[in-house]
Amino acid sequence: MTVHAEDFTIRTRGAGTYEVTRQLREIAARAGVREGLLHVFVRHTSASLVIYENAAPEARDDLHEFFGRLVPENEDYYTHNDEGPDDLPSHLRMALTRTSETIPVRAGSLALGTWQGVFLFEHRRAPHSRELAVTVMGMK
Amino acid sequence: MTVHAEDFTIRTRGAGTYEVTRQLREIAARAGVREGLLHVFVRHTSASLVIYENAAPEARDDLHEFFGRLVPENEDYYTHNDEGPDDLPSHLRMALTRTSETIPVRAGSLALGTWQGVFLFEHRRAPHSRELAVTVMGMK
Amino acid sequence: MTVHAEDFTIRTRGAGTYEVTRQLREIAARAGVREGLLHVFVRHTSASLVIYENAAPEARDDLHEFFGRLVPENEDYYTHNDEGPDDLPSHLRMALTRTSETIPVRAGSLALGTWQGVFLFEHRRAPHSRELAVTVMGMK
Repeated sequence: MTVHAEDFTIRTRGAGTYEVTRQLREIAARAGVREGLLHVFVRHTSASLVIYENAAPEARDDLHEFFGRLVPENEDYYTHNDEGPDDLPSHLRMALTRTSETIPVRAGSLALGTWQGVFLFEHRRAPHSRELAVTVMGMK
Repeated sequence: MTVHAEDFTIRTRGAGTYEVTRQLREIAARAGVREGLLHVFVRHTSASLVIYENAAPEARDDLHEFFGRLVPENEDYYTHNDEGPDDLPSHLRMALTRTSETIPVRAGSLALGTWQGVFLFEHRRAPHSRELAVTVMGMK
Repeated sequence: MTVHAEDFTIRTRGAGTYEVTRQLREIAARAGVREGLLHVFVRHTSASLVIYENAAPEARDDLHEFFGRLVPENEDYYTHNDEGPDDLPSHLRMALTRTSETIPVRAGSLALGTWQGVFLFEHRRAPHSRELAVTVMGMK
């Protein structure tokens, strides 16, 4: 059994989804784990993670639009507006998606389905630097 | 420490929830892990997982209806409609629930609460074959 | 490699969020794991977990209000009302958040981001006793 810990940073260019599947596949390869789990965690409260369809870019446009409508800016009842109108919605959108995802490792590789990609979901409008902590655990 | 990896398939008969608790309990027993974690991952982007009340079937009917209303078909702004009107909503409903769940193993058994069941949430109308990858890790 | 399992109970005083970060940090310290993962699981279907902004209490008030509006009580189509009007909404709010969270452990401590706290999200109005099962796994 072994544990491999490795962090990396993604620079976002505004709200939207940023695929990190390639980075996670590379970390899985470096970890030297044959069978086990890879865990990825985003260390922020205004960005999140989602495993989503990675073939059709329109499906991601629709995801962004859906969350924009489900959690609109400037609702009358919002009380937390310190950092602008996209601040509180970014926390709510994060709460509705994931802070971490865990993915099986099989034969040394991420065992994602054919159409599955892992995405950082940036909820703020301004560019941000986002830290992801990756932990791979399992049998050598 | 040990890792037990085992996959299985569920054939769905249309949109709805399908309990997989029994299959997971059987895998936990076969894994021979006394104390640790069981992770179950669905390798698709139009089906998901949810831990939900497993005693009252009406509570599941209400869950299906709630997601049908929260993420309706045929919204004007949807751009991804390649595979029919239930395609894009299936991705959004998946993004709002889980691609994987992790459950504690105690004394060799899944330590679910009294009313907790694990369900595959099928979001497509047509029958599908859904692959689940299970990983059990912990102390013998 | 080691596994540390420890359960604890939170007594809630009605619907809302209750921070459990301190309890998890203490368990991580007792586990004696230097590098690995901490998993926390709530053994109920009407309470859930969420990692959320822990500096501004107003951001949590807005979270409660958002979920109250997204999943209202007394919708005409609800069929499961055995335990009162807050019963079914509590299951739906749970399904939209998490039954478990997994957090990296680095240098023996929980590697949460600066503003991240872990919260038990109680969805019932009456006080409840909620069991949380914590599993820490990794390298000594």
